[in-house]
Amino acid sequence: MIGYGFMGAAHSVGWRQAPRAYDLPGGVEMAVVVGRHADAVAEAAAKWGWLESATDWRAVIARDDIDIVDIVTPGDSHAEIAIAALEAGKHVICEKPLANTVAEAEAMTDAASRAAANGVRSMVGFTYRRVPAVTFLRDLIAQGVIGRVQQVRAAYRQDWLVDPDMPLAWRLQKEHAGSGALGDIGAHIIDMTQFVTGLHVESVSGTLDTIVKQRPLLGSGSGLSGTAAEGFGEVTVDDVAIFTGRLAGGALASFEATRFATGRKNGLTLEVSGDKGALAFDLEDLNALQFYDRTAPGDRQGFTKILVTEPSHPYVAAWWPAGHMLGYEHGFVHQAKDFVEAVTGGTDPHPTFAEGLSVQRVLAAVERSSAEGSAWIPTGA
Amino acid sequence: MIGYGFMGAAHSVGWRQAPRAYDLPGGVEMAVVVGRHADAVAEAAAKWGWLESATDWRAVIARDDIDIVDIVTPGDSHAEIAIAALEAGKHVICEKPLANTVAEAEAMTDAASRAAANGVRSMVGFTYRRVPAVTFLRDLIAQGVIGRVQQVRAAYRQDWLVDPDMPLAWRLQKEHAGSGALGDIGAHIIDMTQFVTGLHVESVSGTLDTIVKQRPLLGSGSGLSGTAAEGFGEVTVDDVAIFTGRLAGGALASFEATRFATGRKNGLTLEVSGDKGALAFDLEDLNALQFYDRTAPGDRQGFTKILVTEPSHPYVAAWWPAGHMLGYEHGFVHQAKDFVEAVTGGTDPHPTFAEGLSVQRVLAAVERSSAEGSAWIPTGA
Amino acid sequence: MIGYGFMGAAHSVGWRQAPRAYDLPGGVEMAVVVGRHADAVAEAAAKWGWLESATDWRAVIARDDIDIVDIVTPGDSHAEIAIAALEAGKHVICEKPLANTVAEAEAMTDAASRAAANGVRSMVGFTYRRVPAVTFLRDLIAQGVIGRVQQVRAAYRQDWLVDPDMPLAWRLQKEHAGSGALGDIGAHIIDMTQFVTGLHVESVSGTLDTIVKQRPLLGSGSGLSGTAAEGFGEVTVDDVAIFTGRLAGGALASFEATRFATGRKNGLTLEVSGDKGALAFDLEDLNALQFYDRTAPGDRQGFTKILVTEPSHPYVAAWWPAGHMLGYEHGFVHQAKDFVEAVTGGTDPHPTFAEGLSVQRVLAAVERSSAEGSAWIPTGA
Amino acid sequence: MIGYGFMGAAHSVGWRQAPRAYDLPGGVEMAVVVGRHADAVAEAAAKWGWLESATDWRAVIARDDIDIVDIVTPGDSHAEIAIAALEAGKHVICEKPLANTVAEAEAMTDAASRAAANGVRSMVGFTYRRVPAVTFLRDLIAQGVIGRVQQVRAAYRQDWLVDPDMPLAWRLQKEHAGSGALGDIGAHIIDMTQFVTGLHVESVSGTLDTIVKQRPLLGSGSGLSGTAAEGFGEVTVDDVAIFTGRLAGGALASFEATRFATGRKNGLTLEVSGDKGALAFDLEDLNALQFYDRTAPGDRQGFTKILVTEPSHPYVAAWWPAGHMLGYEHGFVHQAKDFVEAVTGGTDPHPTFAEGLSVQRVLAAVERSSAEGSAWIPTGA
Repeated sequence: MIGYGFMGAAHSVGWRQAPRAYDLPGGVEMAVVVGRHADAVAEAAAKWGWLESATDWRAVIARDDIDIVDIVTPGDSHAEIAIAALEAGKHVICEKPLANTVAEAEAMTDAASRAAANGVRSMVGFTYRRVPAVTFLRDLIAQGVIGRVQQVRAAYRQDWLVDPDMPLAWRLQKEHAGSGALGDIGAHIIDMTQFVTGLHVESVSGTLDTIVKQRPLLGSGSGLSGTAAEGFGEVTVDDVAIFTGRLAGGALASFEATRFATGRKNGLTLEVSGDKGALAFDLEDLNALQFYDRTAPGDRQGFTKILVTEPSHPYVAAWWPAGHMLGYEHGFVHQAKDFVEAVTGGTDPHPTFAEGLSVQRVLAAVERSSAEGSAWIPTGA
Repeated sequence: MIGYGFMGAAHSVGWRQAPRAYDLPGGVEMAVVVGRHADAVAEAAAKWGWLESATDWRAVIARDDIDIVDIVTPGDSHAEIAIAALEAGKHVICEKPLANTVAEAEAMTDAASRAAANGVRSMVGFTYRRVPAVTFLRDLIAQGVIGRVQQVRAAYRQDWLVDPDMPLAWRLQKEHAGSGALGDIGAHIIDMTQFVTGLHVESVSGTLDTIVKQRPLLGSGSGLSGTAAEGFGEVTVDDVAIFTGRLAGGALASFEATRFATGRKNGLTLEVSGDKGALAFDLEDLNALQFYDRTAPGDRQGFTKILVTEPSHPYVAAWWPAGHMLGYEHGFVHQAKDFVEAVTGGTDPHPTFAEGLSVQRVLAAVERSSAEGSAWIPTGA
Repeated sequence: MIGYGFMGAAHSVGWRQAPRAYDLPGGVEMAVVVGRHADAVAEAAAKWGWLESATDWRAVIARDDIDIVDIVTPGDSHAEIAIAALEAGKHVICEKPLANTVAEAEAMTDAASRAAANGVRSMVGFTYRRVPAVTFLRDLIAQGVIGRVQQVRAAYRQDWLVDPDMPLAWRLQKEHAGSGALGDIGAHIIDMTQFVTGLHVESVSGTLDTIVKQRPLLGSGSGLSGTAAEGFGEVTVDDVAIFTGRLAGGALASFEATRFATGRKNGLTLEVSGDKGALAFDLEDLNALQFYDRTAPGDRQGFTKILVTEPSHPYVAAWWPAGHMLGYEHGFVHQAKDFVEAVTGGTDPHPTFAEGLSVQRVLAAVERSSAEGSAWIPTGA
Repeated sequence: MIGYGFMGAAHSVGWRQAPRAYDLPGGVEMAVVVGRHADAVAEAAAKWGWLESATDWRAVIARDDIDIVDIVTPGDSHAEIAIAALEAGKHVICEKPLANTVAEAEAMTDAASRAAANGVRSMVGFTYRRVPAVTFLRDLIAQGVIGRVQQVRAAYRQDWLVDPDMPLAWRLQKEHAGSGALGDIGAHIIDMTQFVTGLHVESVSGTLDTIVKQRPLLGSGSGLSGTAAEGFGEVTVDDVAIFTGRLAGGALASFEATRFATGRKNGLTLEVSGDKGALAFDLEDLNALQFYDRTAPGDRQGFTKILVTEPSHPYVAAWWPAGHMLGYEHGFVHQAKDFVEAVTGGTDPHPTFAEGLSVQRVLAAVERSSAEGSAWIPTGA
């Protein structure tokens, strides 16, 4: 695993728990964590249960005893590491978004394509696909229960930037993060929309905004929990993105990615309206799904809150009895499980790098639309 | 209409709106309001749109131009007025609870029975039966959609007595109110349980309690909005009642009536569990019904929130398009409509005085059970 | 009252109930309903409690005994009637949207302005302003409890057009309705946003769409409940409108007005995010308000569901005890009350025609933006 | 760990994750799982990551390299194993309920007491205490934010016995399970009530019932997922328990434990009403807490939904950013953490065996009350 921030902790849970919850073919050995600062990465490796730590990712990639490379670094380093790993014949999981630019994502997708010819697998870490309720939502749409998709509403709302004293972390700097709310959380709702509907976002019109334009420089710490130092710096990424997309087939999808939704902590919501029904999901109530069935008797229609905790629901049989809730990190366990099964079974796991590239193209089109006065931009996705 | 407190206002809305929302056979003329204080009752009559006011209810009952007597006085006067009105050949609506004692309720039921032989109609004012969602809930149970009733949970939770400075209104004095939370709000959930299930509460075990035992004497004002005077008086009724009932056929029903549920303003909730499904209602969300269908596909089961605002739902066609909400007073409009239709159509409206007596018997059995250490007491209901 | 459709019924409740719930200066006499078809309008007048009916609105406007003209006709006739009434010295309530075009709305606003100089009052019927929770939400923002407004999300979601067999009612024809979801329900959320924040929508970028482009011709009946005849006609208005607005001061507001939100019946939702807190409202739970207070202790923050049913809340003291719910038509009662008080008190009621014109300008700008590829259009509002 | 059923899986997650999420003093080595069937227990040990398996618990307890014994067997074996382990000087976690009878629980508490004198620690596994929202609820009550506790409502509602074909598992047989819904899930709500209020249930009046009295014999499998064989057997435990308790100081608490709440999967709900506020919890929304503050301004009071996912909330700092949800098994991780910290820190963890005994006494009093016609029985708790 390359990187050891907040995502490193989550991926570690995935690797640790997957073989304990599921009967996986082959064993999973948590080999080595790589990071820039030797002491800190050694501490992380010890705490999370990895056998070793290292500071040189190229050396680790070269090792024969490493089969899988899991990339959880900031987006600006994804392309270089992933391409090198794929070329070294390692199976790669790369945290989302796939890259900071379309060009990088294209290079990565090319590399993945060449590697696949040799049986080397790759996957992007849109773990929310693997929340059981999301997977089940996708299954229900695929089964036709809501008919033809006519509208989608997707939003990801957080509020951690409402506080003007929140310091200038790497996620707020364009050179590291690529983009702000759009690339970090907007990427999730684009992928989720495309995943559950099976339809690409073909064109977009949107607006990016930066509500708080200057923030205290980052002192000690990192990520979301850093503390402020003296002096101020420029926020060079968006903190709100609002855009409308046209899906293949013509349905309209509205998107909002914001860190200024006061009181909303991790409010990813999705609602898909079809001509036979509707489905809705809320990440702050992630074990449930809302389902409206227009074919039910007229006086009994309504949104049904399905607890997606039955053994018959995706991924759930390995866990607890009905009504016992799963949490955030279960998506990482399911991701590890599916990746190991794909690698050992010789199949391509999803989301592929090509799917990650598709999201990247939508992101780029939104940025361009915003720059061009919200003009409609084809995504090429 | 005899009486002009808060219930008088609500009944007035009923009489005023019913002929405007529904095509009623015959007209409705709001003739006269009767009360003890001439000025106050005259003011109420003028404001609420009654043609006259009066202070002598016996004189009014004797008038030939009065067809219907609507009794909204405190419970201790119900029996005398209702029996006199019925004997004078007037159709009677009597606010719940029917009376303060079983003996009074029996006398009233006898009077109603004799009057019925002459085509004189009578009804108790359990208006919550006529919230569309409650009527529809009853209909669904009657259609068998939840199968055999196995458990009922009914609660009525308010919090206006949590404040120890709330003064000693008539509702807190046994000689006027008969009982406290039990008789006032517990009566509603007993009636609703019997109404929706079609099953009587055959025996009960329960506990009454008075959490705040002394309160400031009532100064000016009345009802719930009175202000405190100097000095304290004894609260002589219960403010919490918790009891378990056995329904005909054996199902267990749990009941709670309380004015100490901090934060709950008018929280009447009902949940009926059957072997094929369940139904739940909450008066603080009174346009909705929750329906669980055990016969649905296993992975799609859940509570469906039905908005009971479709034209096909009971009472609703006369009102607004789907999704436009009804409020508290619509139950009084529906009550007035049904009563007028019954009177003009020559049928007996429900709830009958006999049903009111049945509730009274359950209330009396709960009081006795509490006095006898929660022993199980047959209700005779 | 000119017109007698669904809005006529709602306005009638307003005029009938306002003097019974509130102590209004001067009486309210429900004089005459005007409509094209003599029999039908006579029937409506009788049912709703108006003294007379008539077919010639000009004759009615000319009558000396008429003080107030209430216009509830389709939008294409608003300007002509309202201007005539104002010029005849009648106080005017005009149902929303104020008109079908900006030019009409401007003429009406001019007429209102001239009339005001003579003490003649006018008002647009955005009744949702007078849902107690909405008025209270506005009051809280005005008091500064959520600080500076940074984002607004407003949506009005219905689903009655999801059914492709729903016939071609006047609301779906541009010549009568002016616009579709945008003008009918989008107007509400534009007005509500401007009302509660006190900020105009200064520019917009948006997209209109018509998902079902042909519908059965209308047979008998009218409005939402008409039945289909043979043959098909073109839907000439939008059924989905998605747009982003920039408020005075820079906040971003996102809007959606749709009749294709499967399962949403009358889902008007509003969320205002400020730097000190947030407020949210949902018309399907119209007695409640959600309030998030960022100044509360960090470990106790959350959305507080305030039941706006306390006597201290706007409009509520005239109604029932806390926790007793109000419904859709109470907004019309409050509107009638406020209008009568303004007329008798010699003050200008809100929303003024100028405010209605402001909404109209935003609507027009959205249409133009949609026609110009979602370009940002200044509204002039 | 002795036992390897569903609870064994949950406890294994606890032991595995605790040292990865928290910085625990000393290491945690998952040594050996003990079970009756050699092959099955070996398989469980391998899957869950234990170093060894064994079939003779006495031999394991005798080993010097074992410090902690974790007992997850059915209740009828708890006393024998726990007492032996304590006498062997091992620290003991015993799954709830502590035992099947008060006599056993007393013997265990005595043994724990003797062992404590030698620095040997013991704890009962009421893990729901360690759901962050529950711990935080307790903290808030202890801080006085809701004032004096006046009423408690506690319920645990499941529906897995509504299906009459569910076979006769050990949990439905008195000789193994001790009691049914009462002992299994009722124990949780008794403990939680006592834990959060700090008050004992001093007397009870209640009713037990068995709604489905005969069930198919158990074929293959075990626990909740067993399949039916031919023939029927008697259900010898309760499947519904409804009881009222009087807490120290006089507050009334109502309890319901049922497996016939159709549609409720794991619905543990708790509401505590105080004279200054109220707190409510729902295990099906386990990351949230509802808090009503009567001391807030009158027009802004309401239930605040606190997401208990902030770093300042109990246990949360070790996990994910705010708004990222925890699940069922996190309680087991927190339990393992607290137990290891207590053992290494030389303090007594809670809940103690004495607290487990207290719950057992309440359970016994409820059974006796039910047998004696719901008479009030002092618990001695």
